[in-house]
Amino acid sequence: MARQMHLGVFVLGTGNHIAGWRMPGAYDSFQSLSVVQHIARIAERGCFDLLFLGDGLSAGVNDHPSFTARLEPITMLAALAATTTHLGLGATSSTTYNEPFNVARQFASLDHLCGGRAAWNAVTSSSPKAAPNFGRNHPPHEARYRVAEEFVDVVLGLWDCWEDGAIVAERDTGRYIDGSKVHTLDHEGEFFRVKGPLNVSRSPQGRPIVLQAGSSEPGQNLAARTADVVFSVVQDFEEARAAYASLKGRMPGYGRRPEEIAVLPGVMPILGRTRQEARDVLEQLQSFVTSTNAASMLGNRLGMDVSGFPMDELVPDLPLPDTSHGFAKAMLSKARREIMTWRDLHNLTGAARGHWVIAGTASDIADTLQEWFEGGAADGFNILPAWFPGAFDGFVDEVVPELQRRGLFRTKYTATTLRGHLGLEVPVNRFG
Amino acid sequence: MARQMHLGVFVLGTGNHIAGWRMPGAYDSFQSLSVVQHIARIAERGCFDLLFLGDGLSAGVNDHPSFTARLEPITMLAALAATTTHLGLGATSSTTYNEPFNVARQFASLDHLCGGRAAWNAVTSSSPKAAPNFGRNHPPHEARYRVAEEFVDVVLGLWDCWEDGAIVAERDTGRYIDGSKVHTLDHEGEFFRVKGPLNVSRSPQGRPIVLQAGSSEPGQNLAARTADVVFSVVQDFEEARAAYASLKGRMPGYGRRPEEIAVLPGVMPILGRTRQEARDVLEQLQSFVTSTNAASMLGNRLGMDVSGFPMDELVPDLPLPDTSHGFAKAMLSKARREIMTWRDLHNLTGAARGHWVIAGTASDIADTLQEWFEGGAADGFNILPAWFPGAFDGFVDEVVPELQRRGLFRTKYTATTLRGHLGLEVPVNRFG
Repeated sequence: MARQMHLGVFVLGTGNHIAGWRMPGAYDSFQSLSVVQHIARIAERGCFDLLFLGDGLSAGVNDHPSFTARLEPITMLAALAATTTHLGLGATSSTTYNEPFNVARQFASLDHLCGGRAAWNAVTSSSPKAAPNFGRNHPPHEARYRVAEEFVDVVLGLWDCWEDGAIVAERDTGRYIDGSKVHTLDHEGEFFRVKGPLNVSRSPQGRPIVLQAGSSEPGQNLAARTADVVFSVVQDFEEARAAYASLKGRMPGYGRRPEEIAVLPGVMPILGRTRQEARDVLEQLQSFVTSTNAASMLGNRLGMDVSGFPMDELVPDLPLPDTSHGFAKAMLSKARREIMTWRDLHNLTGAARGHWVIAGTASDIADTLQEWFEGGAADGFNILPAWFPGAFDGFVDEVVPELQRRGLFRTKYTATTLRGHLGLEVPVNRFG
Repeated sequence: MARQMHLGVFVLGTGNHIAGWRMPGAYDSFQSLSVVQHIARIAERGCFDLLFLGDGLSAGVNDHPSFTARLEPITMLAALAATTTHLGLGATSSTTYNEPFNVARQFASLDHLCGGRAAWNAVTSSSPKAAPNFGRNHPPHEARYRVAEEFVDVVLGLWDCWEDGAIVAERDTGRYIDGSKVHTLDHEGEFFRVKGPLNVSRSPQGRPIVLQAGSSEPGQNLAARTADVVFSVVQDFEEARAAYASLKGRMPGYGRRPEEIAVLPGVMPILGRTRQEARDVLEQLQSFVTSTNAASMLGNRLGMDVSGFPMDELVPDLPLPDTSHGFAKAMLSKARREIMTWRDLHNLTGAARGHWVIAGTASDIADTLQEWFEGGAADGFNILPAWFPGAFDGFVDEVVPELQRRGLFRTKYTATTLRGHLGLEVPVNRFG
């Protein structure tokens, strides 16, 4: 069988578009189990590899609605564990504001609860707004990544502490654990000392899938060394090809084959029966964006207050901030390339938060996804529906069948774990 | 209607008895969603107020099986949120090894996911075995409680940051949040600086229920000031009455009425059709305890290595350890009162981990529970089935109907939230 795409859905209950909740029939809450259950059902109907919940550790009343009042992703995924059967369940958890023991445990636990479908998106928490909720100063980018490198290693180590078959539960002798198959980690590093073992046994996938989204130099190195799936933030084909090649090219240096990571650029498909209809939908969405929301979103993405810049001036050449390099770089380089004003940049972030938007018919969208997939820019895509459920229903009912007809995407699940969907092998246990 | 009992079930998948998993038909895993789902179904059939998951942050291969390989409680409860309808869902989360922002968020999130049934058991993590998993030294008892006092205050404060009605989601204007109803906390204390607001809106119960189990002097003060439900560790009626009076007596000093806390002693019922049968079941259970397991459990409870003491010597007068004062005190005072040997004490902890055991017929057990309930020793009970599902089925099918016939316990749910089951009012929002 030809190489197959992998598809994820990026879930924000009010839609990925900042004003998606204002569309007719759209959900307007990200604090409801029934909303995410509905989204998960659509994703399973579309044979998606995974559902993904981002996260943030602060609330601003003018932010994207789903960034303000949101449920905590791990609890939300665990609730979905009980009501889904095949869908991978991925969530962000910070390497800056958590303990590795707690993170290792929660994702291992989730992997048990859902029978091998859990994925951890290791992020360094780029927003400086989180720090005051943890009595901290926002660590600089480089320091966050040094901590993250060690944090991820500890988590991977804790996931190996139990070999398969350590629980014997022999009723006749009373022996419950085979102690020779449970190991301490005894990690002593620059930032963490963690003895172990974890108090959760080896999980159904061997270990949960590791997601990453960092696109800076240290972000790409961390991903090349440890990730199974990478979400990338790109705005056009050439940029996506370059990012793809850069990441995959680093992998042999870490003793890994390029196929061991699936690179999924984020994309917001805007679907119409005609191209004009798609453009009209996008225009309608953009008309719903309030200037307060757009300025807040852009300010967060660029890591600076942008309210002082006149809307009709060109975006100047600005230094990269100490927040998320990925978003800032994608936005600022697009602004330079396309000679954008601040108003243009507001519109761009308001739409897909810095991700790439394709508007067109199902066939147009499938063409573009195929071109990227076959042209060395992607192993699949992280789909960002502008609103739920309508825009996601549209993608699953119109675009997915088109991809299936072209032999690019599965027509039914052939595995029961996320690792299986991704075609990845269960990793060898370092203690095994 | 006469005053009604409240019932909780303490869930350890392999049973509360250390060797319960060896009973015929018993579950032998605490790492399975289907096991806890089954237990939750039994609890809802019995109209229980809540299901409770304890926790620990380390694994020892000779510990109670459910203390060694266990799923993380919040993920497990969140999974149950989707498959239960009335049952309160309570879990332990440590005030020593977590950040208050993360804990506030997870339980608020859980409360949204289950429609108002979440409860947080604030514990200080008494076991010194947790510290090396977090690069820490085990803080002494007094220091743990000073941190816990402030931690609980921060969590309660974060739960108030959003007033009811803060989410307006006005589609026509695009206004999503009423900013005047979202508040920063601006906490600056001895141990924590937390700005807020939380990024979860006010939860269905106003705030999740707060559980506590500390029985030391600082533990009782913290509970009297902040708890809605207290689990107590007691071994006989007089001790239970004294603990009950001591806790309730502290409440007016914090401006609270004694009815605002439900005190639920932990009890392991061992049921038989006759008293002899019940004694036989207990004997069978005890015969399954291996000496390694019993020594490990007792050592953990007393906070010292007990393997050097000859089994047939009397338990000497020992100082209270720096672990859990509640268990150590209950065990050591019972050993003194009843002139026990180390072997007796091993047997006692092996059974119910230091909790109280009643063996008898359904009517005997109902008599004792009624006596405690009416005699000023309890507002209900935290039931610790020795194994699952059999011992819990027995309690729900035999003892609960007996309590219902006596008018002591509800015959159906009359509320949809845990706060409603407990007869507690939604707290006033400090910012409201």
